[in-house]
Amino acid sequence: MGDFPILHEYAASGNCYKIRLTAALLDCRIERREYDIMKGETRTPDFLANVNANGRIPVLQIGDKFLPESNAACFWLADGTHLVPYDRFERADMLRWMFFEQYNHEPNVATLRFWMKWIGEANFTDLQRAQVPAKQTAGAAALRLMDEHLARHPWLAGQDLSLADVALYAYTHVAEDSGLFALADYPAVQRWIARIEAEPGYIPMAA
Amino acid sequence: MGDFPILHEYAASGNCYKIRLTAALLDCRIERREYDIMKGETRTPDFLANVNANGRIPVLQIGDKFLPESNAACFWLADGTHLVPYDRFERADMLRWMFFEQYNHEPNVATLRFWMKWIGEANFTDLQRAQVPAKQTAGAAALRLMDEHLARHPWLAGQDLSLADVALYAYTHVAEDSGLFALADYPAVQRWIARIEAEPGYIPMAA
Repeated sequence: MGDFPILHEYAASGNCYKIRLTAALLDCRIERREYDIMKGETRTPDFLANVNANGRIPVLQIGDKFLPESNAACFWLADGTHLVPYDRFERADMLRWMFFEQYNHEPNVATLRFWMKWIGEANFTDLQRAQVPAKQTAGAAALRLMDEHLARHPWLAGQDLSLADVALYAYTHVAEDSGLFALADYPAVQRWIARIEAEPGYIPMAA
Repeated sequence: MGDFPILHEYAASGNCYKIRLTAALLDCRIERREYDIMKGETRTPDFLANVNANGRIPVLQIGDKFLPESNAACFWLADGTHLVPYDRFERADMLRWMFFEQYNHEPNVATLRFWMKWIGEANFTDLQRAQVPAKQTAGAAALRLMDEHLARHPWLAGQDLSLADVALYAYTHVAEDSGLFALADYPAVQRWIARIEAEPGYIPMAA
């Protein structure tokens, strides 16, 4: 076991990228262990017993402790740094956007990206096919809500870049991968994406 | 405007109850404003412009600031108290369960409760009807994951009751309302429910 936190991940997942981006912005070193989710490598008895009983990545390993849930792993890395606002309301407001990300954004924007790009429409189950229109509508509503906020504020929570921006950037900047969203419809989101990509320490998803 | 935080809510919602329960456990006074979601009272132009552009309750109002997302509102109330672990890993682990709640538990256990008890099977859309089996399976998996953890630990995160327990208690203790889950299948969850209900300051959902 190394001295650095170990990220158990699938690199193309935005949920994993969030954690790498948080670490990069903080100049924090992490090690990486790759699993192929398409081959079921996070559902093996060993993974379920020793890494995450929920069978999902990412998981951040800190010594002999395991932390699932991408936004919780980002919080562990950033706790006490400038990426978590010091002000009580702003800190809760950062979490507000992170819960919004997991409830309103990820199940729509990220799930459609995964379905369209990894599974492929030709292989959809009937249930997946039936869910696409509702997920497209809900994903567009999530992007519009962000756009309305970002038209009036440079960052999602507080006065500066925070984990709220990192968490929502991960799947927003690749929203077009599904072919079902156009970022040109959300100009304030596009400007915010450019601001994040200009931050010192920023790394792209493929890094 | 009063001196206390104002909870904009629909009392039968577990997401709203979480916030009332957090306030009660902390002996914190909050005021309550009720909206009838079945009559669309959280989708009016006034609500969307002044309370939450996302059209959802709960929202915790603190002075002239508005905080949507139930778990973020709980965090604001409990930040700096014994309901948020002081240890860095345990604090992140608490958030891990709260993100799990919003991603794996609420969209299944709470949504099925709402569909079965408020909307009624006879009124389901085809899409809702098609989603029930997957939501029942995913909800049972979430309850099983909690049960396995609680068979080995008294609380979800750290050594004591935390917001993780409050957040997951809200819809777990009424999971049977949908008619699709039986708490007897999760004995460690049942004992944890009893521990929470014995905590000083505990209030039931109907209070």
